[in-house]
Amino acid sequence: MSELGITVKKSKQFSEWYTQVILKSELADYAPIKGCIVFRADSYAIWEKIQDFLNKKIKETGHRNVYFPIFVPESFLKKEAEHFEGFVPECAWVTIGGSSELEERLALRPTSETIMYSMFKKWIRGWRDLPLKLNQWCNIVRWETKATKPFLRTREFLWQEGHTAHATKEEADEEVMVILNIYKDLAENQLAIPVLVGRKTESEKFAGALYTDALEALMPDGKVLQLGTSHNLGQNFSKVFGITFIGEDEEEHHVWQTSWGVTTRLIGAAVMVHGDDRGLVLPPRVAPHQVVIVPIPYKHVEDETIMEKARGALAKLQDNGISTILDDRKEYTPGWKFNHWEVKGVPLRIEIGPKDLKNKQVTIARRDTLERTAVKEGELAKSITQMLEDIQDNLFNRAKKVLDENITEVKSYDEFRKVLGEKGGFIKACWCSQPRCEEKIKEETGATIRIIPFEKEKIFSNCVCCGEEADKVVYFARAY
Amino acid sequence: MSELGITVKKSKQFSEWYTQVILKSELADYAPIKGCIVFRADSYAIWEKIQDFLNKKIKETGHRNVYFPIFVPESFLKKEAEHFEGFVPECAWVTIGGSSELEERLALRPTSETIMYSMFKKWIRGWRDLPLKLNQWCNIVRWETKATKPFLRTREFLWQEGHTAHATKEEADEEVMVILNIYKDLAENQLAIPVLVGRKTESEKFAGALYTDALEALMPDGKVLQLGTSHNLGQNFSKVFGITFIGEDEEEHHVWQTSWGVTTRLIGAAVMVHGDDRGLVLPPRVAPHQVVIVPIPYKHVEDETIMEKARGALAKLQDNGISTILDDRKEYTPGWKFNHWEVKGVPLRIEIGPKDLKNKQVTIARRDTLERTAVKEGELAKSITQMLEDIQDNLFNRAKKVLDENITEVKSYDEFRKVLGEKGGFIKACWCSQPRCEEKIKEETGATIRIIPFEKEKIFSNCVCCGEEADKVVYFARAY
Repeated sequence: MSELGITVKKSKQFSEWYTQVILKSELADYAPIKGCIVFRADSYAIWEKIQDFLNKKIKETGHRNVYFPIFVPESFLKKEAEHFEGFVPECAWVTIGGSSELEERLALRPTSETIMYSMFKKWIRGWRDLPLKLNQWCNIVRWETKATKPFLRTREFLWQEGHTAHATKEEADEEVMVILNIYKDLAENQLAIPVLVGRKTESEKFAGALYTDALEALMPDGKVLQLGTSHNLGQNFSKVFGITFIGEDEEEHHVWQTSWGVTTRLIGAAVMVHGDDRGLVLPPRVAPHQVVIVPIPYKHVEDETIMEKARGALAKLQDNGISTILDDRKEYTPGWKFNHWEVKGVPLRIEIGPKDLKNKQVTIARRDTLERTAVKEGELAKSITQMLEDIQDNLFNRAKKVLDENITEVKSYDEFRKVLGEKGGFIKACWCSQPRCEEKIKEETGATIRIIPFEKEKIFSNCVCCGEEADKVVYFARAY
Repeated sequence: MSELGITVKKSKQFSEWYTQVILKSELADYAPIKGCIVFRADSYAIWEKIQDFLNKKIKETGHRNVYFPIFVPESFLKKEAEHFEGFVPECAWVTIGGSSELEERLALRPTSETIMYSMFKKWIRGWRDLPLKLNQWCNIVRWETKATKPFLRTREFLWQEGHTAHATKEEADEEVMVILNIYKDLAENQLAIPVLVGRKTESEKFAGALYTDALEALMPDGKVLQLGTSHNLGQNFSKVFGITFIGEDEEEHHVWQTSWGVTTRLIGAAVMVHGDDRGLVLPPRVAPHQVVIVPIPYKHVEDETIMEKARGALAKLQDNGISTILDDRKEYTPGWKFNHWEVKGVPLRIEIGPKDLKNKQVTIARRDTLERTAVKEGELAKSITQMLEDIQDNLFNRAKKVLDENITEVKSYDEFRKVLGEKGGFIKACWCSQPRCEEKIKEETGATIRIIPFEKEKIFSNCVCCGEEADKVVYFARAY
């Protein structure tokens, strides 16, 4: 049992806890290639739930899925100077195809702007071709040199990247916001992770963008994780790639573009935010299995009756659209199974034993609170549905409370350093908007401005760094 | 209009017709990287339909989706000698990561046996861990040197690859067949492409397999296309990767394995089999849009009433689960739209004009037969549902008739050459089972044995090649 269970406390050894949970819950495993992981069935199932949700939302809003090549010629990456500088240091390069050296080396896409936009140039001719709203699900390669952290920092990961072209800046602005709201919905209502949203500073924006909006979430170690970004690329790429259209005014214009993405790091975020000392705790809406049924035979009394009841419960829940499995393996004890499914974070466990049989009930154990309740057989589907909703809400509310308690307002640089060192989390402070203050804080403390809120907040001090007049309230944090 | 339409006949210039249809229907486009294509929205939507169907079937049969790295170290590929020889000539190699030369070069997966099985070794310990039934959807890289043919021959394509491990050969045999039947169902009942199924000869089997079963389909140019394969890998890989388990007998055994896959070439097959001189003809079950509604205003008489009716029809069909779009663009004429959606192969077109308005009807045009019918408004959903089924059946039956007419029985090598040269298609012939006859025929005619049927057919001549006694009836063809 000890081999199966998590051997460290989340509150004490967070990083080790994270790795143990991921390996022991069988979400992922280290691949035999440096920097890479295997997405095992449970993490891939979570990713499929994320895909289902996003596909529905982005198709409803007029986007279509496509697939572009993984290869990006070096000359394409070089076209947009900032973009090139941002990505080249972490590219993996194919230099040999079959038995020949390639004339030009090919990067494995670190992102697909340049390869996609060379086609946009070809496809877009006139205003009738706009807006063009595409998305792709694919693998991404970035040659990380820091230590591998499953889901958060690996040399290959999965994502979706949306790429759109519009006739006007206003349409591109609106697109950026439509997507950001979909991402917030995904984070908060599916993954139960509360987020702060806002704009990035110039120094933190995407390489080649006009501006970047982002979602940021607090992790239990006080650091924050960027969960998704939505960029207005302005006309930066359309100018270097020559993507123009003849408008209704019969003049030639450059298109306005956006790009946006979320990655498999969302899975890592959910693990960190919701997990506990026993292992994973999965939000019901993204859990591969929402309910596990464990029959508890007792000295072989009425074994078959118990099994029959278990199978009946399975059928009833499946009929009600609740993703349920029955663990009827004879080679494992109920105790082993309890532990096994707890580590895996299944939201609800149904136990059916002799006492339940006698009382025409089942016993339900909640993974989030570890509470156990007896429920009458006739009310099973209704109760389970309700409890799954309760768990979803509870996980979000619990995380929201932690987030709220870890946004600290500071007025001085001393206070800033103290809070950052002792408490972490988001630090709300006033800033003069000068890059040198942002840079100084980053160098001296490791904290960066995570977002500038969309709704301007009231200035409550001078600049937390230089002491001169501030014109913005911003949120700092140390980030993953 | 001429730019939009297909300018060559399918029966005259098949290869040019194929390329034109794919480009003009906007299924795909050539990427600016040699050997690669872009899967545009319509082809990716077909791929998503294929994914939905297969995901449902393979999950129902106990498989789970996972994702392994794209990188395969050269030393892994080398472990199984036949496998290595089969794949190394067409690998693309990553030799640089970031700014460093890699110590060992990494192939981009040409298939994932070796990377997956190194993990299977770790995960499988005892009989309780079996069967292990995994599948992954991913991109595949094979550095083709022959001319690029969209969907059929490209340096990167998409596929699913299933990989399973079992305790016995019998279980692996059964798995191979379960999957082959799912593939046959996909090909025949979703893509409306009739197939021949059977076993590959030793020389045609997958590099490293014990045996390979396959689906083969006839293309209109008389060549055949392999649509899917299902391999029993025996213990070949488990022996080189050391994948063993402790059985219920408490002895150590090597697992028996299978692998199987279908690729985006299925899309190319559907284009070739069903398309006509006007463009694509898509089977309703995989069509991105099953129905397009084209309003036909006439001298602006009752424009708004026509539009209202069109929107009503759209809502009604969508409510009935029929994937429908309304082409209400004012900047294009109805004639342009007819042509546009015909090239794109939408199964049904609904026209609503003044005459339809007057008669409380709509006019429906079938893409497969080009027939037009008037249908009463009240019967719209029912009629459309029925017509979509009819089209699905008609496409299959039409293709089945062509297949049946192009399986030719021959008794002599002269006859063999004559049929192959003049008619093509499948040639049914008797074979002595000697590799040298198979090899001779391949060298001299380019035809290979596509399948040995599962149900042994009655010998009707001596070996078509050497004239000695035959022991098998097999199906030859020239293949893509």
